[in-house]
Amino acid sequence: MSLPQLIMLPGPTNVPPRVYAAMCKPMINHRGAEFHELYPRLLENAKKVFQTESDLFVLTSSGTGGVECAASNLLLPGEKILVPVGGTFGERLADAFRVYGANVVDLKVETGSAPTTDQVREALRREKDVKAVAVIYNETSTGTTVRDLPEIGKVAKENGALFIVDAISVLGGDDLPVGKWEVDVCITASQKCLATPPGLALVSVSKDAWRVIERSKPRTEYFDLIKYRKFRDEKKETPFTPAVNLFFALDEAFQMILETGMEAWIGRHKKAARAYYSAFKGMGLSFFAEERSRSNVVLAINMPPKISAKDLREKLRKKYGVVVAGGFGNLKDAIFRIGNMGIVTPREVITTVSAVEGSLHELGYPGTLGEGLRAAIPLLSDL
Amino acid sequence: MSLPQLIMLPGPTNVPPRVYAAMCKPMINHRGAEFHELYPRLLENAKKVFQTESDLFVLTSSGTGGVECAASNLLLPGEKILVPVGGTFGERLADAFRVYGANVVDLKVETGSAPTTDQVREALRREKDVKAVAVIYNETSTGTTVRDLPEIGKVAKENGALFIVDAISVLGGDDLPVGKWEVDVCITASQKCLATPPGLALVSVSKDAWRVIERSKPRTEYFDLIKYRKFRDEKKETPFTPAVNLFFALDEAFQMILETGMEAWIGRHKKAARAYYSAFKGMGLSFFAEERSRSNVVLAINMPPKISAKDLREKLRKKYGVVVAGGFGNLKDAIFRIGNMGIVTPREVITTVSAVEGSLHELGYPGTLGEGLRAAIPLLSDL
Repeated sequence: MSLPQLIMLPGPTNVPPRVYAAMCKPMINHRGAEFHELYPRLLENAKKVFQTESDLFVLTSSGTGGVECAASNLLLPGEKILVPVGGTFGERLADAFRVYGANVVDLKVETGSAPTTDQVREALRREKDVKAVAVIYNETSTGTTVRDLPEIGKVAKENGALFIVDAISVLGGDDLPVGKWEVDVCITASQKCLATPPGLALVSVSKDAWRVIERSKPRTEYFDLIKYRKFRDEKKETPFTPAVNLFFALDEAFQMILETGMEAWIGRHKKAARAYYSAFKGMGLSFFAEERSRSNVVLAINMPPKISAKDLREKLRKKYGVVVAGGFGNLKDAIFRIGNMGIVTPREVITTVSAVEGSLHELGYPGTLGEGLRAAIPLLSDL
Repeated sequence: MSLPQLIMLPGPTNVPPRVYAAMCKPMINHRGAEFHELYPRLLENAKKVFQTESDLFVLTSSGTGGVECAASNLLLPGEKILVPVGGTFGERLADAFRVYGANVVDLKVETGSAPTTDQVREALRREKDVKAVAVIYNETSTGTTVRDLPEIGKVAKENGALFIVDAISVLGGDDLPVGKWEVDVCITASQKCLATPPGLALVSVSKDAWRVIERSKPRTEYFDLIKYRKFRDEKKETPFTPAVNLFFALDEAFQMILETGMEAWIGRHKKAARAYYSAFKGMGLSFFAEERSRSNVVLAINMPPKISAKDLREKLRKKYGVVVAGGFGNLKDAIFRIGNMGIVTPREVITTVSAVEGSLHELGYPGTLGEGLRAAIPLLSDL
């Protein structure tokens, strides 16, 4: 017997007991009085979490469903969209628009680095008539975050393009004032930095985005944003049966996050990230992402020579009950990845760091035991 | 203080405690060993519940997402599909295919009745080159079930058309041997007769359907069945993060249903339906659906003169904690609807019947109190 596993994945994450408890509230009518109270509150709190006055919608789907929603509502077939691609999720973002017929211009980004403002400006100069720029803010497959995001947004808007941000793995875990940064469509998911079980996607829609949607007419039934708006406005309901229990959970998670305050909630992720990076550096490990683009929510750590990621992950899971991720595709055994999302306290940090130290040690890694912790603990003083 | 509401809706339904408890099992890695055990078991059990050897997939979406999955995977733009339409959900089914460019031939069915084999045969004779026939098995908005379903399927297959069945509100609550009836694509959802919270859709795919999908190439990223098959076969995983907790819940619900046995599980719905119909008839009420097409899972009951459905539903909810549905669209105040789904025991029946009797009485309905129960109870002897 042991405690539940410590889920240090880049989603799903550990879910706080109060959120789990809320998920099991008795069933209600999704077209009745209780839902009419819940749904507007959920959407209002979502705006606070997104830091925007844009419309917000909660979809019953994974984050990829949120991306599909953007792709099927926004561009018309043949219209041009610029998508920086430097990893699996950038590819998926580009693919979603391609499936719906957009003319997708891939802006190739070196793996481990993030697109820069100059690269985007240059691409927009080269390409004519780009209707939208869609950026993965945090590329989970490589542990990189786009530090130039606000400037890229400005460049997009100056060029008359919509600014779409896939923030699935990062919203709540790093700076992203959706309103201030003029993000037209921002997508996130429940199971990352919002500390809620998986199954919900959130999508924000600016006034500019609405103009495009109304012109394009959604090419989807299930993700039709015009229907979502109509049902919200006329009935305080969703057009299709929502995952009621996950709505309960997200409602509770929002209350928890807003009690903490958005700045503090994000700040916890940043502080824990500093401690993690310092710990792994102290252990002599290196990171997959270039330094300026390192993610605060997903750490992609290079495997030391002669130790396989598979063995490390198995040791972590079986001996310590700590679950981390491997790499995607050809990075499968080259890196391991830790999610720093949602519940972020000194305990998650020290447990994960210690477990990695212990596991690597057993697998023959030459570092001195305790170096990781020695580097991490001083940085946890204000977490 | 009172007990939780009794949710007698046509979905979501009351969820058994063991299913709720399973939903709150500790989080796991959706790309790890625990999921690799869960997912194949879930799909195998789904086949037993669907009574088919076809492939089964579980999607993180509402039932409408399952319909969108069928529409975006199957027909090519311009290809003809015949859809009998006699209510809101028939319209939605037709719309989903229309959104993806199919040439949808609506076969108009009188509201309150269900399409017959002759109507479908006649339409297939009139229309040339119909690639698929898609039927709502149970039209929730009107409380009708297509009693000719197996014969309609035969006619479709004889004409070389795929046979698609939207069984969202009924699978598990009425006869539907998907294999024996040669249904190519059958869609259902978690929150109806499977007694699980909302948020999952299930889709079966026959060999004939695969041939069409492989030719058509899915025009969706999120619902791409070829990806779902690939990830299942190669990894025992879903391509995108699933609603893990709802998978736990559905897994438990399937075990519960299969312990009961499919025939007995369906039989309970039939027996309870008989008792309900008898009770309401005993109270002098009439039904919206024609007799031969009456649904066993959704009872659509005409409001007696001078009593509003809104008042009845409010009385039921506030005084008795029993939640029933009104009508859709222009039937909003003309009928009320009771879901007989999932947890079906004598207690649900007597509580609902008694609460309707009490509420109508208070609202001035002239019937004699107790007539409903008197008609229902003898029919509950073998439930």
